[in-house]
Amino acid sequence: MDNAEALEIERTRLRLTCRHLTGVGPQNPADEFAAIAAWLRDNGPHGEGDGFEPGIQPDSYGCGSLVEDFEAEVAALFAMPAARFMPSGCMAQPIALRIWSDRVGNRVTAFHPTSHLELHEQHGYRELHGLTAHLLGDATRPTGVADIAALIGPGGAAQATGIASVLIELPAREIGGQLPTWDELVALSTFCRARGIRLHLDGARVWQAAPAYRRSLAEIAALFDSVYVSFYKDVGALPGAMLLGPQDFVDEAAIWQRRQGGTLYTAMGNIVSARLRLPPCLERMPQLVERARQVAALFAMQPGAAIVPDPPQTSMFHLWLPGEAEPWLAARDRVARATGIWLFGALKPLDGERAVRAELSMGPASLALDDGELAAAIALLFDPT
Amino acid sequence: MDNAEALEIERTRLRLTCRHLTGVGPQNPADEFAAIAAWLRDNGPHGEGDGFEPGIQPDSYGCGSLVEDFEAEVAALFAMPAARFMPSGCMAQPIALRIWSDRVGNRVTAFHPTSHLELHEQHGYRELHGLTAHLLGDATRPTGVADIAALIGPGGAAQATGIASVLIELPAREIGGQLPTWDELVALSTFCRARGIRLHLDGARVWQAAPAYRRSLAEIAALFDSVYVSFYKDVGALPGAMLLGPQDFVDEAAIWQRRQGGTLYTAMGNIVSARLRLPPCLERMPQLVERARQVAALFAMQPGAAIVPDPPQTSMFHLWLPGEAEPWLAARDRVARATGIWLFGALKPLDGERAVRAELSMGPASLALDDGELAAAIALLFDPT
Repeated sequence: MDNAEALEIERTRLRLTCRHLTGVGPQNPADEFAAIAAWLRDNGPHGEGDGFEPGIQPDSYGCGSLVEDFEAEVAALFAMPAARFMPSGCMAQPIALRIWSDRVGNRVTAFHPTSHLELHEQHGYRELHGLTAHLLGDATRPTGVADIAALIGPGGAAQATGIASVLIELPAREIGGQLPTWDELVALSTFCRARGIRLHLDGARVWQAAPAYRRSLAEIAALFDSVYVSFYKDVGALPGAMLLGPQDFVDEAAIWQRRQGGTLYTAMGNIVSARLRLPPCLERMPQLVERARQVAALFAMQPGAAIVPDPPQTSMFHLWLPGEAEPWLAARDRVARATGIWLFGALKPLDGERAVRAELSMGPASLALDDGELAAAIALLFDPT
Repeated sequence: MDNAEALEIERTRLRLTCRHLTGVGPQNPADEFAAIAAWLRDNGPHGEGDGFEPGIQPDSYGCGSLVEDFEAEVAALFAMPAARFMPSGCMAQPIALRIWSDRVGNRVTAFHPTSHLELHEQHGYRELHGLTAHLLGDATRPTGVADIAALIGPGGAAQATGIASVLIELPAREIGGQLPTWDELVALSTFCRARGIRLHLDGARVWQAAPAYRRSLAEIAALFDSVYVSFYKDVGALPGAMLLGPQDFVDEAAIWQRRQGGTLYTAMGNIVSARLRLPPCLERMPQLVERARQVAALFAMQPGAAIVPDPPQTSMFHLWLPGEAEPWLAARDRVARATGIWLFGALKPLDGERAVRAELSMGPASLALDDGELAAAIALLFDPT
């Protein structure tokens, strides 16, 4: 075993055995499958002869009460007419934009320069669906109504300038979970509706936006024509997503889901996992938004550290650290060994700066650390000795 | 509860509590997840301090030893250079044909009229990938070299006539699991290779083809440029598929998989399920091919019953029954109540005939019934009194 390999194993050990500042903390993946097994046993067929109850059967190619009841539940949460469970957001979102494009015979959409569709999906929206995208405004701040207006020109109607839809991510993950102000968001929605531009919500982490805005998920969704949500990010379930919108939109989305290979014989494990984990996620989210501000304040006191945005708007933020990644990773390991607290995972270099960033997203683990021990761990991270 | 609902519950009870003639028999889905949990617990991280072993970590976006070791194992089984785990065949196969098309700048492919791509995928190959397909030959028999030759014309090169690839399903599910003869298959491969036509194997049930041909999976795959296999059909695992071929082909397929939304944060449950269930499937398959012939012979003795193909070539066959579906379903229920044996599930009307068909695919459950009790159950099915 060489040094690099030994370091990797040591880091895995620390990551899996320390208490975490972020997320759900280290999990044994076996536990999730044991929980799914227990739920299926409790809710499946039972009884014999005339006392037989069929219980909940596995979903079959997207049908059956196991998935349909959950779709109805999430649709109700967002006050949207219909919803469809899908394997991933990478599948759901280009489908949404494609449908809105097809409705007006116009393949042009628009989104933030750091949108997941632009950065992390191998441009499926373009290569599979033939869509083209305008990147809206400054990459370091949320999209505003002015960014869309600039694209269209004064007084222009959407159709005339060729834009079928706009996708807005709330909160915007790549810029530390920033949100536009509520008034700005309402103005953006009003602007788009007046011009027939369909507005789609990239709600991968929208669970955070509701307490941040002090608005319900339904109030947020009311500003949009369609919504995507994820169940593995803040929720902490196995992979899964949902696409919400009008019934005819969702029916069409189900056809594209089949075409993309996402209508599976069964997705019962993923569905049960999401059903089990969504309610506690919704319950803890207000606390997590508060926790992000508390944790950020502890880091902000350290020389050289920067918080983006400062203060955090949601339950996540970015911590910027000066210099290269490796010394900070070594410092993180030192803190973990000394305190049993794991502060962050990967660090990403920042374009054009001699600095790196960590994404700190609060979860159940963040609530279990008290401020005293956390402050001591953070002080040690910045202690050069 | 109305009569239709009561009948539905009664049928569910019979289906879930009887011994089955086909497939794996009734399963409590909780058991599969409990098995996955146990495997993850046994193979995950263990030990403490210096004795810590990281064990197998969950896959992450298609990477990590959990999935890569399994890909290497299946690639070796087929003697193909590389393999990629994917959520479904609906995702894998259009991707394969798209890649072969892109290599020659020609979007035309060809397959059997009953191909899954034509009947059950909402034409994703066309709507997403812009491919067009020739349907090859007579829908009631396997594709032969003459069907491809007819398309191309005498002496024509593929490029001249515009065909980039051919997809062959072995065995062909919609026609009762028929196979071309081995010599015919070799001729077909030779014909395509001589003309630069890429040959793709739809191997959803290819596990059956090896014992049927008395050839190894590697000998079959050697006739093709790329191969798709499924892990939930004969194998009986959770949904999952693999696409096999040259390394550069598989690398390109991984990009398309991402574009289609099939590269998940983790697919560990599906991967573990497939890893657990593939070896016993390979072991029992020769017996199942033999069992199909035995079972078919018992049905063939009954007046009005027809076996397609007769005798079966693989571990599946179709049973054709005269008249409408409902009287046969009622007879099936009567047999289930009287004997505790569930003979078949859905019946499908046959185009242009006053008849219906059942798909009988042998599995572990089929091996557990003895011929005497099965013969009695079948006699009862055909007994009008």
